[in-house]
Amino acid sequence: MTANKFTPSCPLPFGENETVQLAHGGGGRLMQQLIEGIFLPAFDNPLIRARHDGALISPGIEGLAFTTDSYVIHPLFFPGGDIGRLAVYGTVNDLAMCGARPQYLSAGFILEEGLPVSTLRRIVHAMKAAAEETGVQIVTGDTKVVDRGKGDGVFINTAGIGHLESARAVGPDQVQDGDVILLSGDIGRHGIAVMAVREGLAFETTIESDLAPLSALVLSLFEAGIAIHCLRDLTRGGLASALNEIAEAGSCVIQIEEAVIPVQEQIRGACEILGFDPLYVANEGRFIAFVPKKEAEKALNILRAHPLGATAADIGFIEKPSHGAPTVLMRSRIGSTRIVDRLSGEQLPRIC
Amino acid sequence: MTANKFTPSCPLPFGENETVQLAHGGGGRLMQQLIEGIFLPAFDNPLIRARHDGALISPGIEGLAFTTDSYVIHPLFFPGGDIGRLAVYGTVNDLAMCGARPQYLSAGFILEEGLPVSTLRRIVHAMKAAAEETGVQIVTGDTKVVDRGKGDGVFINTAGIGHLESARAVGPDQVQDGDVILLSGDIGRHGIAVMAVREGLAFETTIESDLAPLSALVLSLFEAGIAIHCLRDLTRGGLASALNEIAEAGSCVIQIEEAVIPVQEQIRGACEILGFDPLYVANEGRFIAFVPKKEAEKALNILRAHPLGATAADIGFIEKPSHGAPTVLMRSRIGSTRIVDRLSGEQLPRIC
Repeated sequence: MTANKFTPSCPLPFGENETVQLAHGGGGRLMQQLIEGIFLPAFDNPLIRARHDGALISPGIEGLAFTTDSYVIHPLFFPGGDIGRLAVYGTVNDLAMCGARPQYLSAGFILEEGLPVSTLRRIVHAMKAAAEETGVQIVTGDTKVVDRGKGDGVFINTAGIGHLESARAVGPDQVQDGDVILLSGDIGRHGIAVMAVREGLAFETTIESDLAPLSALVLSLFEAGIAIHCLRDLTRGGLASALNEIAEAGSCVIQIEEAVIPVQEQIRGACEILGFDPLYVANEGRFIAFVPKKEAEKALNILRAHPLGATAADIGFIEKPSHGAPTVLMRSRIGSTRIVDRLSGEQLPRIC
Repeated sequence: MTANKFTPSCPLPFGENETVQLAHGGGGRLMQQLIEGIFLPAFDNPLIRARHDGALISPGIEGLAFTTDSYVIHPLFFPGGDIGRLAVYGTVNDLAMCGARPQYLSAGFILEEGLPVSTLRRIVHAMKAAAEETGVQIVTGDTKVVDRGKGDGVFINTAGIGHLESARAVGPDQVQDGDVILLSGDIGRHGIAVMAVREGLAFETTIESDLAPLSALVLSLFEAGIAIHCLRDLTRGGLASALNEIAEAGSCVIQIEEAVIPVQEQIRGACEILGFDPLYVANEGRFIAFVPKKEAEKALNILRAHPLGATAADIGFIEKPSHGAPTVLMRSRIGSTRIVDRLSGEQLPRIC
């Protein structure tokens, strides 16, 4: 996933005696501070500096992508999914975003004492089904149990390995002037679905998460020979955070058009009630692809031909070099242009 | 690590409404029940069935080992180490036990809201030092934050990838009749060191964990051309659990000699006071190697020439086929023979 990764740019200093806040896990500025202030200086190497959804491994093991995510979503079961499926799809999607075909997963469980075994069984069965669906094998694992009150039911870490499908590099540093930004579908459903069930909110119909495996959709673009420059899934921090990360990592200005970004009416309504901006709400089955302008229409047709990409849209383009600071600019429905900034804190805690 | 892995044999059924207990994470029979009753049936595939410290990956990516572990040790800092070093060494050691040279690690952090940033910094710096020491790169990562009271400071997951060093297979199914069992050093220090600090026990001198990276020691055996059949580190459940797992996975009888198993006097004393058997106490810098009898002396000399193997010993041998159930038999100091069984529950919770 995007913002979860060690993908930095301009650190805020930590005060003395500062403590970790929920917002440090939210995909916004505070997470950036944690990553840039602590993790990156320690683990610095070319692979981790690449600001990708996973590491493209070399030397030694060429052509391999390697990624990891921990899943701490609350509640464990939500409309449209559960932590087990999320833990498989999430890591499969990160490999897909590296331009890799997902192959092997590890699974590390941290269980809280008192967890019903029946709950664990449901989650594990969901992982099995998700692995079969996406063609990955869970080949190694680990289980730890922590005392009651020192965990929260189940936390799952998955790491994943996959073979790179594309001979060319795919990543934020590959975006080029004029690249078109394709969004694979409507945004905001995962975060709102989780929030609604957590807060006991009722809408006219149940809002379901968009949770889905993206590898087949991404691989269909590669198989059609589309020269994809960059891919990013829209998890913590949503579309706005993903675009900001790409703008910074790719040193470019990103221009998008509000009117063409698909948001379901029901999600728009829920966001208004809850005070959220759908641009910042997490998704678990949506991504953006940066492709050369001349291939954009073909790529869009490929996406739309797939059930998971039926509402895909061309939402904007890249300007590079940026002539100034990397920025994400959005032309609103009324024709004005505004900066789409990074979130400073946490909009929705523990949605993945 | 050994018992943490999905490495099964003969499941106990779960009762209805059963819940997860601390002992399900302890490396004994209950952990076996969890693995065999839940994880293995769901994730079944040849790689996970191999009962190894990691998966030897194929097809597609030949010659690669892949492993994972989550670290939930309490306290985060203990005599001789901390969760950061443990998280790097532990996964490095699992790769070494697969016969692989550790190369790339992922790091997934689950932080509890309110964790002092200074604590996180210390841990991350310890990981950096441990990675440099062992020649691995931490190439991808993830951070999640959970609400206060839903975690315990820091949990860390690392997954690791390494190239296999040995052309021949290394694993429990490779042990042969007459194989000599070499133990790399004295046992019981890690578990007792953690327990002592946790319980506020004072001994004449501070008991330090044996936490150490084992890859250099293991690689020195491979480099000398020793035909290692199997390797296993002695983490949760200690020497006794590791031997039981190998006996079951290798369908053999294991004979060991109590008098030659090195245990420091101070550890023996602490174990007597606390009611522990050092055979079952966790280590984080010890392993056993199964080697052909004719190479045992050479291998032992190689181990002893390394600071981490200075007290290495030949502690027994394999009888195969087993003529009956796989068993671990120990000749005691007074000449009697007893079965060294699996632990049923948890001896020391959260020691890794």
